Amino acid sequence: MTTSAAGEALRREAFALPDGLVYLDGNSLGPLPVAARERLATTLDAEWGEMLIRGWNDAGWFDLPETLGERIGRLIGAPPGSVVAGDSTSINLFKALNAALDLAPRRGLILSDTGNFPTDLYIAQGVARSRAGVRLRTVEPEAVAAALDEQVAVLMLTEIDYRSARRHDMSALTAAAHACGALTVWDLAHSAGALPVDLAGADADFAVGCGYKYLNGGPGAPAFVYAHPRHADRIGPHLSGWLGHAAPFDFEAQYRPAAGVRRLRVGTPPILAMRALDAALDAWDGIDLDEVRERSLALSNAFIEQVEAQCAGFDVALASPREAARRGSHVTFRHPHGYAVIQALIAHRVIGDFRAPDLMRFGFAPLYNCAADVDTAASVLAAILREGSWDRPEFHARAAVT
Amino acid sequence: MTTSAAGEALRREAFALPDGLVYLDGNSLGPLPVAARERLATTLDAEWGEMLIRGWNDAGWFDLPETLGERIGRLIGAPPGSVVAGDSTSINLFKALNAALDLAPRRGLILSDTGNFPTDLYIAQGVARSRAGVRLRTVEPEAVAAALDEQVAVLMLTEIDYRSARRHDMSALTAAAHACGALTVWDLAHSAGALPVDLAGADADFAVGCGYKYLNGGPGAPAFVYAHPRHADRIGPHLSGWLGHAAPFDFEAQYRPAAGVRRLRVGTPPILAMRALDAALDAWDGIDLDEVRERSLALSNAFIEQVEAQCAGFDVALASPREAARRGSHVTFRHPHGYAVIQALIAHRVIGDFRAPDLMRFGFAPLYNCAADVDTAASVLAAILREGSWDRPEFHARAAVT
Repeated sequence: MTTSAAGEALRREAFALPDGLVYLDGNSLGPLPVAARERLATTLDAEWGEMLIRGWNDAGWFDLPETLGERIGRLIGAPPGSVVAGDSTSINLFKALNAALDLAPRRGLILSDTGNFPTDLYIAQGVARSRAGVRLRTVEPEAVAAALDEQVAVLMLTEIDYRSARRHDMSALTAAAHACGALTVWDLAHSAGALPVDLAGADADFAVGCGYKYLNGGPGAPAFVYAHPRHADRIGPHLSGWLGHAAPFDFEAQYRPAAGVRRLRVGTPPILAMRALDAALDAWDGIDLDEVRERSLALSNAFIEQVEAQCAGFDVALASPREAARRGSHVTFRHPHGYAVIQALIAHRVIGDFRAPDLMRFGFAPLYNCAADVDTAASVLAAILREGSWDRPEFHARAAVT
Repeated sequence: MTTSAAGEALRREAFALPDGLVYLDGNSLGPLPVAARERLATTLDAEWGEMLIRGWNDAGWFDLPETLGERIGRLIGAPPGSVVAGDSTSINLFKALNAALDLAPRRGLILSDTGNFPTDLYIAQGVARSRAGVRLRTVEPEAVAAALDEQVAVLMLTEIDYRSARRHDMSALTAAAHACGALTVWDLAHSAGALPVDLAGADADFAVGCGYKYLNGGPGAPAFVYAHPRHADRIGPHLSGWLGHAAPFDFEAQYRPAAGVRRLRVGTPPILAMRALDAALDAWDGIDLDEVRERSLALSNAFIEQVEAQCAGFDVALASPREAARRGSHVTFRHPHGYAVIQALIAHRVIGDFRAPDLMRFGFAPLYNCAADVDTAASVLAAILREGSWDRPEFHARAAVT
């Protein structure tokens, strides 16, 4: 597929993007889905306002973690009944790690890589502090396969590196982990909605992911957790909250886990946030993830090509794998003054983001990004670099969150 | 104060309650604050829609857990900088219990009472399963003080019983716990916004609570967690997520807790849910909790008096403490067919709720409840009982959530 074949976005009309903005930061926060406005208004007025407490039954609030889990499940190759939405990615990772460690009781090593997103490593460090005999080992991403041995209880990886977009081979690494008796926990933060994920096909044990990036569920949207059906009924949740109980409204004194992945629910679900995510998932109805992937790579290949052609000689270097199959849905370039360059791009209404020390990230989301976005972003970047216009004081002031 | 002195509600106009509805279930789900509509619309359109990723800084999203924590802190007697909002009550309880156990390292007993809300017991059971040497002991609520001994690491109590509204003496029990070397974790689910709470005055160690009952933050609203300043910097969080890190955007490989209670943040906060809670907290601006308490007791005393006068001989028995000082802000009556009676009340637009086996609960929230609500509820209840109109098939069909 050529860039022009990726031409129009698949669902541009479903998103309320500001006119003239080139938004290439959906890998950090997806844009507002138009449907979210009415969905939230209905949830406020017709449900919370009118039904009040009855909303838990009559408006389906109580089941939203499962109904959203089903909708997300389709996008990540999870069988029905294996995903629940709720809590944050970090907290879901805590659930999944503890579950995996309990199922591999004679081993204590969590293996991960140094490129993993920090909260994943922090959560694993917290699990290691709180469980005797558990420790975290990190190796370079390329060294993961070789580091798998009979000490490893759990291989915990993020499929797509948040900085470089480097893609781990989920299927091969899961098979390698299983071959040495370890379980896998995959973080799909930069995968869900970005490319086809096949949890069942890869035989992954557990997975977690985020609702606010490519799924467009809104800032801090509910996350999700997947447990392979062969494990789900064997999990003894450490976060054993009432909505993971087999009969929450029987108010029994003793925790008794619900069947299957429902036991990974904990407290009362945040309905407003769940409704926004539900509205966002409407945009995925009828979407073929293979087509999303094809367009994503057409857009990102074109971006790489145009940037390298137009910015040669201006200290820009590709920091993502050049081979498309080894990348996720964003592209990262290095520049010694990347922070200032990104600020200059933002001033020109091209939104990418910066990650220390020198990484400029550009996310491509075919639901709303199109070939014209690539052309604009590349040419504005080239103009900024050629003119040296990033080298102004206002582009060097460092914001708290970048 | 007489019933009529409690006459008008304090902030009736701040809530979008349906006309003619007598809503006495704010102890389960508070009603929609009018301000939430515009707040959510602004958050969607002007912030998420327009600012996109910049919202984290420019709209103050990033700091919402602390800014909401400050607002809640005023209502529960917590000093500035000691409360953060986020996650669910269950998850915050997990954080607080683990923190308290870590600070009392030579003891393993969590003491609680059999009347505690089930999720509190379930979470403690999960903590006990996941930590060697930790166990949960429950005693009758009246036996708590006598059960405090040098084995107890943590006294975990809910101040107001969700069924009977029986109130524990937070100050006396905290002092008794401290006298035997234990720490306290208080659940304020039915306290925050219901009556004055003085965490600092009671010298409580940790507390958690709920945003969706008397605080009116919406279904599944963010919860909160309090850590006494003497403990906060000594906590090594088990749920060590990136937004509890000292420098989340430095993306360090090693977890390093933020100063104070900020370390009890975990993942990315749910902004839409937080904005609704923020709007709900507006209704508390300038409200004196002592006046709320005085009105709450005037309303509930009047309700007890009217029900007992009008329903004598119809199997109704008070299940709450008769002494006002020993009650929270709801009143519970027993009736052998309580479930059907509550359904009949709901059919007459008087909303209370039912808890097995025979408890009918009626919550009084002076922000929006008034003396006329008491009169209507008592007289409708009396009419239903006198006519026996609860004894119809449609009132006996048991719903999934009651």
